Amino acid sequence: MPFSAALKQIVDGVEGGLGAAIMGYDGIHIDEYLREDPPMDLHLLAVEYATVLKEVKRTVDVLGTGDMEEVSVATERSRVIVRVINDDAFLVLTLERDGNYGKGRYLLRLAAPKLRELLS
Amino acid sequence: MPFSAALKQIVDGVEGGLGAAIMGYDGIHIDEYLREDPPMDLHLLAVEYATVLKEVKRTVDVLGTGDMEEVSVATERSRVIVRVINDDAFLVLTLERDGNYGKGRYLLRLAAPKLRELLS
Repeated sequence: MPFSAALKQIVDGVEGGLGAAIMGYDGIHIDEYLREDPPMDLHLLAVEYATVLKEVKRTVDVLGTGDMEEVSVATERSRVIVRVINDDAFLVLTLERDGNYGKGRYLLRLAAPKLRELLS
Repeated sequence: MPFSAALKQIVDGVEGGLGAAIMGYDGIHIDEYLREDPPMDLHLLAVEYATVLKEVKRTVDVLGTGDMEEVSVATERSRVIVRVINDDAFLVLTLERDGNYGKGRYLLRLAAPKLRELLS
């Protein structure tokens, strides 16, 4: 399965990359790639963000501003970027606080259509 | 009250800016500035994002990755950037899909501490 290779490419390709995962909206991990010794629980993080994403999706549906594409959350110690793959799955990338946010967004945007094909 | 002047400065300062608001987590508008004829209901948008933000805040608290600072959501037709001001209020900026996202984030980051002082 070439998923983890794609995820490794994203994480290694961005400064401050900690880990990436392909997740279902049900909170189930499809695949993941983590750098060694991540400073936070990236499993838990991805599961929790599945819940957030469901809430954002509901909101976006109410607002009628088109399909959701990307959600990002910055906290004191992390940057998380979530990119929708299809109606079932999404990509999560976690960066250090001062990681290269723009490049992370770019790599996810590139990867999503390829993963969509692989998952269909 | 200088809030709407600060909001106008943000909206006019970013390419593709549609509107900005200072909102309470309870969904109440503190102040806002909208460009004429926005292509979507920015009132409703801000209220709905208050709900999203509460969910993100809950998640961030669970994960223990420090305080929430910024949330952004991209859909097919809009970009919304939310910046936390304090425990009671946040800033929302709505951009057109191809608006200058990086500049929007930058202007909110600059404005938040000033608004925090004004609100305290």
